[in-house]
Amino acid sequence: MKILVVGAHGTVGRGVVAELGQRHEVIAAGRNGADVTLDLADPSSVRSALAPLGQLDAIVSAAGQVGWAPLLDLTPEQWAFSVANKLMGQVHLALVGQQFLRDGGSITLTSGVLVDQPVPCGAAASLANGGIEAFVRAAAIELPRGIRINAVSPGVLQESMGDLGPFFRGFEPVPAARVALGYSRSVEGAETGKVYAVQ
Amino acid sequence: MKILVVGAHGTVGRGVVAELGQRHEVIAAGRNGADVTLDLADPSSVRSALAPLGQLDAIVSAAGQVGWAPLLDLTPEQWAFSVANKLMGQVHLALVGQQFLRDGGSITLTSGVLVDQPVPCGAAASLANGGIEAFVRAAAIELPRGIRINAVSPGVLQESMGDLGPFFRGFEPVPAARVALGYSRSVEGAETGKVYAVQ
Repeated sequence: MKILVVGAHGTVGRGVVAELGQRHEVIAAGRNGADVTLDLADPSSVRSALAPLGQLDAIVSAAGQVGWAPLLDLTPEQWAFSVANKLMGQVHLALVGQQFLRDGGSITLTSGVLVDQPVPCGAAASLANGGIEAFVRAAAIELPRGIRINAVSPGVLQESMGDLGPFFRGFEPVPAARVALGYSRSVEGAETGKVYAVQ
Repeated sequence: MKILVVGAHGTVGRGVVAELGQRHEVIAAGRNGADVTLDLADPSSVRSALAPLGQLDAIVSAAGQVGWAPLLDLTPEQWAFSVANKLMGQVHLALVGQQFLRDGGSITLTSGVLVDQPVPCGAAASLANGGIEAFVRAAAIELPRGIRINAVSPGVLQESMGDLGPFFRGFEPVPAARVALGYSRSVEGAETGKVYAVQ
């Protein structure tokens, strides 16, 4: 398969590339330093980046940033940034990207454990992740040509515990290599409208 | 209690006013024709509307519009409208509104059945509702002064089946008077971070 991985150089993305790259052609996309440069928050950059690639078998998003601050300190700009990036950035990637997928191709987005298990400072992340999971279930019943869509909901990454550990005390960290299995299951499986929790 | 009901003249809002108005002072707010005029998509109008009311015991949002179209026909404008109204409009109402609540006051937002049970044309509604439910769980652990926050997730309203029936075949319609019990449970109960499904 020819698989576009957006956010390929992030912690999750590197795990996904390592897992799927064993069996498939992976095109790495991201804000910089990748095969393909695109900004998830800018739908026109997504279209420009995808058009020259030819038909894809799968699109994986391991990308999407959010603001991180105590609830009452999150600024309107941080809320807007979170919505434009992790939430609507991934939605637009799916809606633009499906045009470049073969019949029966797949889209895999990323949500996260904070949908159901919130932590202080994570309200914008929770909101974005909750929107993504509901979007995936909804898009699955309407995407044309047998195109599938799922989400992976990772727990806190073992590799991120240096920065995020204080926010995630008591959460069991998950290695990126294990999180990558969720993406494998979505891309190489046959289900649609699912959320694969790897937590 | 002194309770602000935003969207008081909508189908759900009228049910909420009828239920809570039996026991409490209800201030009806909405885009027009209400005691208080505000536009959920405009945070400054929310602040201006709430400031003169004095301290409130509860804020209920039975408001929030979304775009409604087949997935691939939803325009960027419809997505932005949905996010600004039902999703971030309710979030901003909560964040602005909490400042006007007494200690131990409550906020109740509205999600909907489409979070988990999508229908064609409802992807923007699903996304907004999913974001709201995750936000409520997250905000509940950070709101100060004992302020509670919950959501009510109504099924399709019996009173709306004339317009929405074709989209909701097989769904059991719920009378607004029964949906209103979810808001009563949130406002007059003691839980926080919950989603009351009345479906």
